[in-house]
Amino acid sequence: MSDTQGVRPQSAAEISDWDFEADVVIAGYGIAGVAAAIEAAEAGADVLVLERTGGWGGAASLSGGFIYLGGGTPLQKALGFEDTPENMEKFMLAALGPGVDEAKIHDYCQGSVEHFNWLVAQGVPFKEEFWGEPGWEPPHDEGLMYSGGENSAPFKDIATPAPRGHLPQMQNKRIGEQGGGYMLMKPLTDAAEKLGVRAEYDIRIQRLIVDGDRVVGVVAKRYGKLLNIRARRGVVLATGSFAYETKMIEGYAPRLIGRPAAAIEEHDGIGIRVAQALGAELAHMDATEVAFFGDPQTMVRGIMVNGRGQRYIAEDTYPGRIGQATLIQQDNQAFLIIDEDGLEEAQKTETSSPYFRQPPTWAAETVEELESDMGLPAGSLQATVEVYNRHAASGSDPLLGKKEQWVRPIGTPVAGFDMRGFTAGFTLGGLRTDLDSRVMHVTGEPIPGLYAAGRCTSGVCAGGYASGTSLGDGSFYGRRAGRAAAHDASN
Amino acid sequence: MSDTQGVRPQSAAEISDWDFEADVVIAGYGIAGVAAAIEAAEAGADVLVLERTGGWGGAASLSGGFIYLGGGTPLQKALGFEDTPENMEKFMLAALGPGVDEAKIHDYCQGSVEHFNWLVAQGVPFKEEFWGEPGWEPPHDEGLMYSGGENSAPFKDIATPAPRGHLPQMQNKRIGEQGGGYMLMKPLTDAAEKLGVRAEYDIRIQRLIVDGDRVVGVVAKRYGKLLNIRARRGVVLATGSFAYETKMIEGYAPRLIGRPAAAIEEHDGIGIRVAQALGAELAHMDATEVAFFGDPQTMVRGIMVNGRGQRYIAEDTYPGRIGQATLIQQDNQAFLIIDEDGLEEAQKTETSSPYFRQPPTWAAETVEELESDMGLPAGSLQATVEVYNRHAASGSDPLLGKKEQWVRPIGTPVAGFDMRGFTAGFTLGGLRTDLDSRVMHVTGEPIPGLYAAGRCTSGVCAGGYASGTSLGDGSFYGRRAGRAAAHDASN
Repeated sequence: MSDTQGVRPQSAAEISDWDFEADVVIAGYGIAGVAAAIEAAEAGADVLVLERTGGWGGAASLSGGFIYLGGGTPLQKALGFEDTPENMEKFMLAALGPGVDEAKIHDYCQGSVEHFNWLVAQGVPFKEEFWGEPGWEPPHDEGLMYSGGENSAPFKDIATPAPRGHLPQMQNKRIGEQGGGYMLMKPLTDAAEKLGVRAEYDIRIQRLIVDGDRVVGVVAKRYGKLLNIRARRGVVLATGSFAYETKMIEGYAPRLIGRPAAAIEEHDGIGIRVAQALGAELAHMDATEVAFFGDPQTMVRGIMVNGRGQRYIAEDTYPGRIGQATLIQQDNQAFLIIDEDGLEEAQKTETSSPYFRQPPTWAAETVEELESDMGLPAGSLQATVEVYNRHAASGSDPLLGKKEQWVRPIGTPVAGFDMRGFTAGFTLGGLRTDLDSRVMHVTGEPIPGLYAAGRCTSGVCAGGYASGTSLGDGSFYGRRAGRAAAHDASN
Repeated sequence: MSDTQGVRPQSAAEISDWDFEADVVIAGYGIAGVAAAIEAAEAGADVLVLERTGGWGGAASLSGGFIYLGGGTPLQKALGFEDTPENMEKFMLAALGPGVDEAKIHDYCQGSVEHFNWLVAQGVPFKEEFWGEPGWEPPHDEGLMYSGGENSAPFKDIATPAPRGHLPQMQNKRIGEQGGGYMLMKPLTDAAEKLGVRAEYDIRIQRLIVDGDRVVGVVAKRYGKLLNIRARRGVVLATGSFAYETKMIEGYAPRLIGRPAAAIEEHDGIGIRVAQALGAELAHMDATEVAFFGDPQTMVRGIMVNGRGQRYIAEDTYPGRIGQATLIQQDNQAFLIIDEDGLEEAQKTETSSPYFRQPPTWAAETVEELESDMGLPAGSLQATVEVYNRHAASGSDPLLGKKEQWVRPIGTPVAGFDMRGFTAGFTLGGLRTDLDSRVMHVTGEPIPGLYAAGRCTSGVCAGGYASGTSLGDGSFYGRRAGRAAAHDASN
């Protein structure tokens, strides 16, 4: 095998010995992989999962654990929130574009309640408690939260707000600990094991094996040795994002250069690469989740301004939207302006961040002085605060629609926090797949025998993001991939 | 041949009769195709160009004709402008990213003077006259102009400003006529013809023909009949952008949905598709040029504000930057605020646009009244104008750095022009190629026998754009493709 073969497909005709065989071979034991494994096994397939690290979990088990679900889940209903698949779809179409896969979003919303029930049936626990404060995650083990700006401008006027961030319950969770991702993955991998799913660890896929146009296996490497693994029915790629593959980031999503987050170093795009080598279609390779390392409880009590001292986003929206707006639309320039009272109030909240307990970058007796200290043009920040205060006096924010609850004139003394470079994220683009998670060729036809789900695919997000959509479409379309591969009897 | 073969490569072993043969086969007779044809023929190759329309020209011949060149071209020198390859490189690195191909930009800047001389040697005429007024193009046949915001903030402080938009001279050009693109393409196609380059028209490529990993020809269609065309040395893809391929736009560059421009309907991404089917690497598929249908002579005399009444860009910069900033960073919301004096002055300029000769969308006696008429929050536009005027009184613009020449307080009466939806553009992303225009496989190795240039490739632009960079890298790397293919003796 030549050195330049790399991710190029290998012909099955060249292979005489198979090291492993299964009906369905799944690459990656994160959320998409485990969901595929369970469904494939339940459909009667003999399933083998290949995981490059020493254990199951992937990025999912290290994550907060949000799964974006709605349309009237039992948890939403128990907590008194009304939602319908149509209402959920309206929000997702508005928030996750432009250029979303409309069929996929429709499908996802229609299947969302069933998917929630399936997760519960696998043993994933959700506590019937709602967390309504601004934040990235609940501080304890609450099971439901707004996670995409549904109840903030502009979406609160587009669809009826409903919280859809469903969180698996982590027993005895303390603030600052890892979230519910582990309690999502643990019951699912237990369920897979009970169904007889086999897993091999420390094994890394290298390329696909093809028989004509059809994918019939993978070549993988373990401890330097190449192994040939035959998939009698189908191969499922579930290898995660390309957030840690520098060359792909430079070429496809350069705004993330130097700032990968909420991904793991194993996320090197291999699943995308091996399928590209077969002519697979891609989508939205520039799309990224963008985390913003600012405390929502503090931000909501001040105003966020850009490098020109102008407000640019409703401070009470989903912080991931603040991250995207800051990185993509404001050249990563962001400052929080907050008065002493606001800061003190924020510091009393349970989830306030240590950053805002340190002395602010700038502190001043007047906005004029703060503006000067920050190096902003004379009058610029003053004008921003004056316009904000003018309307805040009557509890409104006509410029950006921050909710009345959080609107209060900025007083003095006043502080500025430098929040430039507070962004980091992971990639959302990848292989284009259909509703059965079949990997599409650039011809528009599926590639026979090849399935994919999770962050090596383009899912429900094209441009925007809401917490939980990644574990959401990863698990939802992981299941589809497992089921479709198990029923793929063509090999 | 099955219906689903589409763009999938075809094996040479299946082909018994060749309808055409040449050393170098070039798909597309626009700027990249003609540059490749000339160089390949000069290197001694027998060259065949396949063009899907009835004649040569492509998008290039309908364009303004800008070629982005510098580093001290004879035209720059004759007109008294100093420039070096290093200075040009500084600008291009700053303006065309993030994520630019640094090696390609370095190479392009180093070769720029030679490339200018080559164009002149082919008979492309450049008039030794500079046009220094704001605008998209010179009104007459001037040969040199700023075309990327080199002399505006922020670039004027990053690299020494030098105009690099080189324009072929169109005899007797009148305002409103097509620009120099024809006078770029005419001498080049004449030169190609003299060198014995053959061209076949009304013939459209369908897929590549391969012998193992090597590209050895193309299948093309003419009047419903499939033709097999053998390339003894190499195939050059020069088929233009994907601006008119709706599905690719939705999947890769959704901000351009419904607004293709400066491209031609033939730009359906076919060159990208046939190479993707071979495992070709892509880059920057989301990148787009964005034209803005506003008259720079008018815009520069007012202030541009977004949907919140805030300024967001120096109004005297390259209008394509205004287009990108408006579409990508301001959700396509743009308004021009200009006073009566400024408007009257603009209307006296030679190139002012008819749009601004019509009554403005809103006209008012005061900024407060205008703000209210425009539906902006009370105080918002007033604050913007106050801050602008405060500094304009002393001729400065610390917020955005508009040049002193154009800074003057906004007086009354005052008008607002609605410029929402004034953007349109073409795609800049495509196949990843190396400095010899070899199409790269996702393995990082070139695909043997396959070359590409022009807008089916990712060139010097990753995110930003300057007028002339597209014809610039199309011609520059078109030449490289032709030369490399002619010397590719492996078939």
